[in-house]
Amino acid sequence: MTARGPATGRRGAAVRAGVLRSALELLADSGYASLSMEAVAERAGVHKTTVYRRWSNREALVTDAVLEGSSTEFGIPDTGDIDADLRDGVRALARWLDGPVGRPLVAMLASDAGRLPAVQSAKRRFFAERAAVASDRVAAAVAAGQLPAGTDPTALLSTLVAPLYLNLLVTSAPVTDHDCDRAAAVALTAARAGLLGPAP
Amino acid sequence: MTARGPATGRRGAAVRAGVLRSALELLADSGYASLSMEAVAERAGVHKTTVYRRWSNREALVTDAVLEGSSTEFGIPDTGDIDADLRDGVRALARWLDGPVGRPLVAMLASDAGRLPAVQSAKRRFFAERAAVASDRVAAAVAAGQLPAGTDPTALLSTLVAPLYLNLLVTSAPVTDHDCDRAAAVALTAARAGLLGPAP
Repeated sequence: MTARGPATGRRGAAVRAGVLRSALELLADSGYASLSMEAVAERAGVHKTTVYRRWSNREALVTDAVLEGSSTEFGIPDTGDIDADLRDGVRALARWLDGPVGRPLVAMLASDAGRLPAVQSAKRRFFAERAAVASDRVAAAVAAGQLPAGTDPTALLSTLVAPLYLNLLVTSAPVTDHDCDRAAAVALTAARAGLLGPAP
Repeated sequence: MTARGPATGRRGAAVRAGVLRSALELLADSGYASLSMEAVAERAGVHKTTVYRRWSNREALVTDAVLEGSSTEFGIPDTGDIDADLRDGVRALARWLDGPVGRPLVAMLASDAGRLPAVQSAKRRFFAERAAVASDRVAAAVAAGQLPAGTDPTALLSTLVAPLYLNLLVTSAPVTDHDCDRAAAVALTAARAGLLGPAP
């Protein structure tokens, strides 16, 4: 398929989504260094002018792909039981990180693309948004007496997800269900010991 | 300085160390994609044939630089007080990761170089070695009744260092003394709650 005319509406959105997905897949396959606009166009099945019309260079394209890919709304589930919800939330995150969007995103973190200023700020924003989403759930758990008052959502979230990223980015070990359950148990135990207050 | 003849002995070792350090610095500055043998030679102040004589390509050079850089013996201190020793150990690691060898190594983890098979296996080996070094200190703490029997050195080490790498590789946040002290406190609390046994 080629899309030479101005692609608008539903078709334009589909072209855009296809190009961004292809960019993430190529990043995952072979890194940022060898990524070309032409290769992305070819993988997405569109003409390269379609790509250049929307993104002036590969930095802009990769940044958009990362922002789009990371915009998934990740909430902590709310069944009223914070222990079960954190465990389920970490398992869901691990599945997402190992899926069609998460894998390319993680590979991108561990590639030259990760040093692009726009990608760096996208990473920070992604994490800040997750913490903001988590804060309501944490407040509810505090209100229910399941977590101590003063538990900092960012500290809780960091403790919760850090072991996953250690495996993915440093030790290249798979993230197992046991890793997820342990991460949740460690974060809960630390919070209840009063260790996860806000940074001074 | 140029080193055209076979550089051996002390001078050869100095040339080798200079080239490896320059390779790590260039990786930290601008990533793997744009790293060339010529640029490394220039930064190290040696002729490029000196570099090519020892390393046939940049993959071999980068792998050697990473292996050399990560070979520092990182032990957990042993004053007899595991709480203080873990806290000091994490702080020392954080300082090293922010120093002249650690910074390039961390930047390398987050670059296209990180996907080289030899670098992947160097990362795994680095981590396995650290766990092996930690296991004696953990055994001593168990013997002293400061940690529960069955505490797994790898699980303890992962819990201890994961928050540091989260900051360095994912959220691009600085690692503060408070982060280090909290990481140690969380790992100790988790171990004492019986959460850091070996994986099933």
